[in-house]
Amino acid sequence: MKIAGFDIGGANTDLAIIEFDESGDFKIIRTDFEYFPMWLKKDELGKALLDLVGEDEIDAVGVCMTAELVDAYKTKKEGVIDIATKSKDAFSVPVGFIGLNGVLEFDEVLKNPDDVAAANWIATSKIASRISPNCIMIDTGSTTTDIIPVKDGSECSKGRSDLERLKTGELVYSGTLRTNVATLVDKVPLDSDFVRVSSELFAISADVQMVLGNIEEEDYSCDTPDGAGKSKIDCMRRLSRVICGDLDMLSESDIEKMSEYIYKKQVEKVAESLLEVSKREDLDLVVTTGLGMDIIGAKAAEFAGLNWKGMDEILKKDECTVAPAVGTALMMEEFLGQ
Amino acid sequence: MKIAGFDIGGANTDLAIIEFDESGDFKIIRTDFEYFPMWLKKDELGKALLDLVGEDEIDAVGVCMTAELVDAYKTKKEGVIDIATKSKDAFSVPVGFIGLNGVLEFDEVLKNPDDVAAANWIATSKIASRISPNCIMIDTGSTTTDIIPVKDGSECSKGRSDLERLKTGELVYSGTLRTNVATLVDKVPLDSDFVRVSSELFAISADVQMVLGNIEEEDYSCDTPDGAGKSKIDCMRRLSRVICGDLDMLSESDIEKMSEYIYKKQVEKVAESLLEVSKREDLDLVVTTGLGMDIIGAKAAEFAGLNWKGMDEILKKDECTVAPAVGTALMMEEFLGQ
Repeated sequence: MKIAGFDIGGANTDLAIIEFDESGDFKIIRTDFEYFPMWLKKDELGKALLDLVGEDEIDAVGVCMTAELVDAYKTKKEGVIDIATKSKDAFSVPVGFIGLNGVLEFDEVLKNPDDVAAANWIATSKIASRISPNCIMIDTGSTTTDIIPVKDGSECSKGRSDLERLKTGELVYSGTLRTNVATLVDKVPLDSDFVRVSSELFAISADVQMVLGNIEEEDYSCDTPDGAGKSKIDCMRRLSRVICGDLDMLSESDIEKMSEYIYKKQVEKVAESLLEVSKREDLDLVVTTGLGMDIIGAKAAEFAGLNWKGMDEILKKDECTVAPAVGTALMMEEFLGQ
Repeated sequence: MKIAGFDIGGANTDLAIIEFDESGDFKIIRTDFEYFPMWLKKDELGKALLDLVGEDEIDAVGVCMTAELVDAYKTKKEGVIDIATKSKDAFSVPVGFIGLNGVLEFDEVLKNPDDVAAANWIATSKIASRISPNCIMIDTGSTTTDIIPVKDGSECSKGRSDLERLKTGELVYSGTLRTNVATLVDKVPLDSDFVRVSSELFAISADVQMVLGNIEEEDYSCDTPDGAGKSKIDCMRRLSRVICGDLDMLSESDIEKMSEYIYKKQVEKVAESLLEVSKREDLDLVVTTGLGMDIIGAKAAEFAGLNWKGMDEILKKDECTVAPAVGTALMMEEFLGQ
């Protein structure tokens, strides 16, 4: 049996196609993702899902989502129902949806849409529990970081919605690529002094990572804030603008120092939440995953003084970047087998 | 003699038309402004300036600018030269440009474009010095706040560029309308607890001011982040999204409490810079102006424990919101009379 797992986010839609044999063992056939800004293109979602699956013949589809939050929807309910309807209509095979208490069928989603809102971390925790039944899963994506406690093999996040998780430290709205630098710092160092930053959307975390060599140009998979290119010099130009400068006024070394500071502050903020969850739940092993598993997740664990393992112990690196999609396919298979 | 003063900002272009009699006394004939996002519409600037002037016959034009910073320009030099060229070409009467050391003619701008970059605060300080020759002028616009020391009737800002002023506290990138709420706070209060905020551009300071009743819908003169309306309920919906909530999950009172907190933090940050300049320059009278003169400038002065006067002692309220344009016309008249 082949199952397609989708993680439909606000900015990216991820796919994992997994084949299961009769003993329940699985093999990941293929993973993929598309930068698909739902606030612009939500009406084309069905086609995007079909295009991602392409020629592969599949027997079932699992869907988890966070895209209901984008401001093209007035409420989350409206978003969940629209996304679930488009996902279901796109396929002729069974489609299931990840909810807070497991997989739901379409009719159940219509009755309890809130259950399905932003539940992708449930799917990812499923994989983390295979590495250690007692751990904190930290999944750093392009935009956000999930910090989920797992005990006795099951996730036990205290917050059950994004809002609650922003309160409990189990969600930090800070990611590898899309985070506005002006939301990470109030000031940056320059010439043995500090300079306040502009509050515009002039540069994002992807620009910082590019300047520091933490990602390659091909990893910069979101739009640039100014619509210009993704080369190091383009990123430096955007960062110079954050302090109302330009590349006539600031040297490469100035911008590297700024970037190091911004990066450090971002890691520290994630570490603060990680410690909050670690202390509350009395857990001290961190399992990192997602696009930023090495450059943010692992660094935050180290800053917090916690041991960590990468989810790449059991998945390939590129599979980790779409871990919620992988977990979704695994949960869908369990659901069909029940 | 009638002179048109323009303040060409990144988001708004302001106009003041002033008539001078032979004794040098002046009367403000008319002020106006247009929301004119330069990052989208810079090629139509000349026409926008002519439309603002309309039928009025003028004898000269003064221009100050900050729009060279928008990310449609690769460097400030490129921006200054483009804006100055379009301004000059639009009119057949003399056009002068406010620079760091007074008014420049077009040829001089081409030689020293940096002198003209972001010098609108020079023009505004000119008016403040008429209220008190020793004061701190605080001009809170839609996007930024200038905090300029004036001594013996002349501005003496230690920073001479936006970058330097972000270092010296003489520029705070925080304003009445356009400031991303996620750059103002990391957390907001909810139900006797704190909730971390999303780092997206979900809500802006204008939404906060609307919820608190500090501005009317007609004052909300910039675009909304989600393209939706400007009523209080629309603003509340945007603010709910900042903590990944919606109006099903949050009450009006929840959002009012959030808004009070964000507003207080914004005022405190402006007050911090005001105190920095006040202590360094040993000045303790603040002269407020700009769109946010009452709701941000005066509140920041009070928080800092400083005395303040409004520029509306000598200008009308709506003239204060375009004070740089008024000051620009005054400086142009002095220049022509020399």
